[in-house]
Amino acid sequence: MQCPIARTLERVGEWWSILILRDALHGLSRFDQFQESLGIAPNMLTRRLNGLVDAGMLERRAYSERPLRYEYVLTELGRDFRSVIVAMYAWGNKHFAPEGASVLLVDCKTGKPADPVLVDRKTGRQVTDPAFRFAPGPAASARVRRKLAASPWGGATLDDQRAPAAGAQRRRQPKSRA
Amino acid sequence: MQCPIARTLERVGEWWSILILRDALHGLSRFDQFQESLGIAPNMLTRRLNGLVDAGMLERRAYSERPLRYEYVLTELGRDFRSVIVAMYAWGNKHFAPEGASVLLVDCKTGKPADPVLVDRKTGRQVTDPAFRFAPGPAASARVRRKLAASPWGGATLDDQRAPAAGAQRRRQPKSRA
Repeated sequence: MQCPIARTLERVGEWWSILILRDALHGLSRFDQFQESLGIAPNMLTRRLNGLVDAGMLERRAYSERPLRYEYVLTELGRDFRSVIVAMYAWGNKHFAPEGASVLLVDCKTGKPADPVLVDRKTGRQVTDPAFRFAPGPAASARVRRKLAASPWGGATLDDQRAPAAGAQRRRQPKSRA
Repeated sequence: MQCPIARTLERVGEWWSILILRDALHGLSRFDQFQESLGIAPNMLTRRLNGLVDAGMLERRAYSERPLRYEYVLTELGRDFRSVIVAMYAWGNKHFAPEGASVLLVDCKTGKPADPVLVDRKTGRQVTDPAFRFAPGPAASARVRRKLAASPWGGATLDDQRAPAAGAQRRRQPKSRA
């Protein structure tokens, strides 16, 4: 599948995998630490850890030679997944903490809880603004183009794919003298 | 589980559910639209749609009386999940589009691709800044407190939970004359 969300889920699309990544971001690395935190069956945990290693999210590292023991450390790719975890955390806290939050993200400079929102790095505008829409990228298949053309959230055109203005068009025509 | 991420996954922790939400955010609402988009078996799709209705993410609405037909429309909760979807989209595009992006989020005001980052609404600082850490909230269990105390990503203290300064402490003592 071409969709970046589907590709993300191919790597981490299982409940347990995302909770393992959450724990790894919180500094856990050893099999028994994950097991204690998650209460997951050992064979299930082994499968999920191997899956995350295969997906390039975790790296296996020996921390003891005799007996041989491995720990599981986040790769750069895995560390970068923090943005998805924080988005989930913010959404979950907003909607599913009727008794009050149990975990808060805090700005240590001020001691105040953070309120994470997704903005465009360049303009600082929230990407939930209706002006942000999806457009087919350079590698989009015909299927992706069709889907986006029909989507109310699609329909964007990239600056450099816009029909050039009349003046620009004239400039692009081959010079008759050449 | 108390963790807001675990609570999020309880609602949408399955591959198909997240892809259904993605499609719903792109405006699909009817059974056959989802089926065509996802290539999913009908009984599987029925189960996932019912699950998302039960989780409060989608709402079932009759769009035809004879024959009786339902469509599935996002609730406010489901629409709000857009932030998680966009975070996944950004992460997937950054790492898994070796052939170039197939889908781009575009700022229609400028025609430039957006670069979504998570910031604190109040200060505009990126929450990947190490100064943002997790702290137990008012409803945290002993288990959550223990986990956060041990986490390199934890260890934050809320402003109003900080040990009061000596002067503040004196003021809080009951007046001896009362």
